[in-house]
Amino acid sequence: MKANISAITLGVQDLERSLRFYREGLGLSSPGVIGTEYARDQTNPGGATAMFTLENGLILSVYARDDLAKDADVALDRMAGSATSLGYFVDSRDDVDRVLERVKEAGGTVVRAPLERPWGIYAGYFSDPDEHLWEVVYFLHGNRPN
Amino acid sequence: MKANISAITLGVQDLERSLRFYREGLGLSSPGVIGTEYARDQTNPGGATAMFTLENGLILSVYARDDLAKDADVALDRMAGSATSLGYFVDSRDDVDRVLERVKEAGGTVVRAPLERPWGIYAGYFSDPDEHLWEVVYFLHGNRPN
Repeated sequence: MKANISAITLGVQDLERSLRFYREGLGLSSPGVIGTEYARDQTNPGGATAMFTLENGLILSVYARDDLAKDADVALDRMAGSATSLGYFVDSRDDVDRVLERVKEAGGTVVRAPLERPWGIYAGYFSDPDEHLWEVVYFLHGNRPN
Repeated sequence: MKANISAITLGVQDLERSLRFYREGLGLSSPGVIGTEYARDQTNPGGATAMFTLENGLILSVYARDDLAKDADVALDRMAGSATSLGYFVDSRDDVDRVLERVKEAGGTVVRAPLERPWGIYAGYFSDPDEHLWEVVYFLHGNRPN
């Protein structure tokens, strides 16, 4: 079996808000909200979601927090917080600043202004409207791993 | 600029435990814990981490929760919960069952036994030792997106 992550699903409060944020903030493209024909009921999660296909084939999707909790059969209060950070690698220092600027304009929050770390990166963090953490990273010494 | 996610960092309590879990539970390979020369201090996060390179070039890394909180400059209590689910797509129904079995043996928890969803998947969820959610997915009608 191949060992791959094929998709990343972010639990969110408002699909349309997240769709707009990721389109405007990161320039991702998506056909929009799909799956609305699968309605949420007492026992089953709804199917409404919006997906973004990234250049490496990975799928980023946004899905209502309460649907995700129901789908995974975990308590809704586990859907708070974010002990995960998604890494967005860029090709220059300026790109780090530029992405963070754009994200801010799109309604995200820069939680840590970019700075150099001793392990050879220049990076800052932002959070999306649901507090999902992203790190925007430039590798200072041409040691970008991919 | 390319719109890609290059890395996924999971905040964890115990690097060695997570390293063992992902090696045994998902069969991922890693050179082990690196970056221990960058010690944590009052103001700076430590650099110790373990990275797994996946087949599509994506990097999965585990990083101490308190280092991640410090690195991102967010409160440590935001490092609880998991409003994110990582999707692990497999090629058969049996593979879904097999991955969940293996994960359980490695110390993970099957939070939702696999079942069919009306949108054409057979899938179950597990959580790793730090409660990060993963969904193991088989597409029933050959409609696997990647």
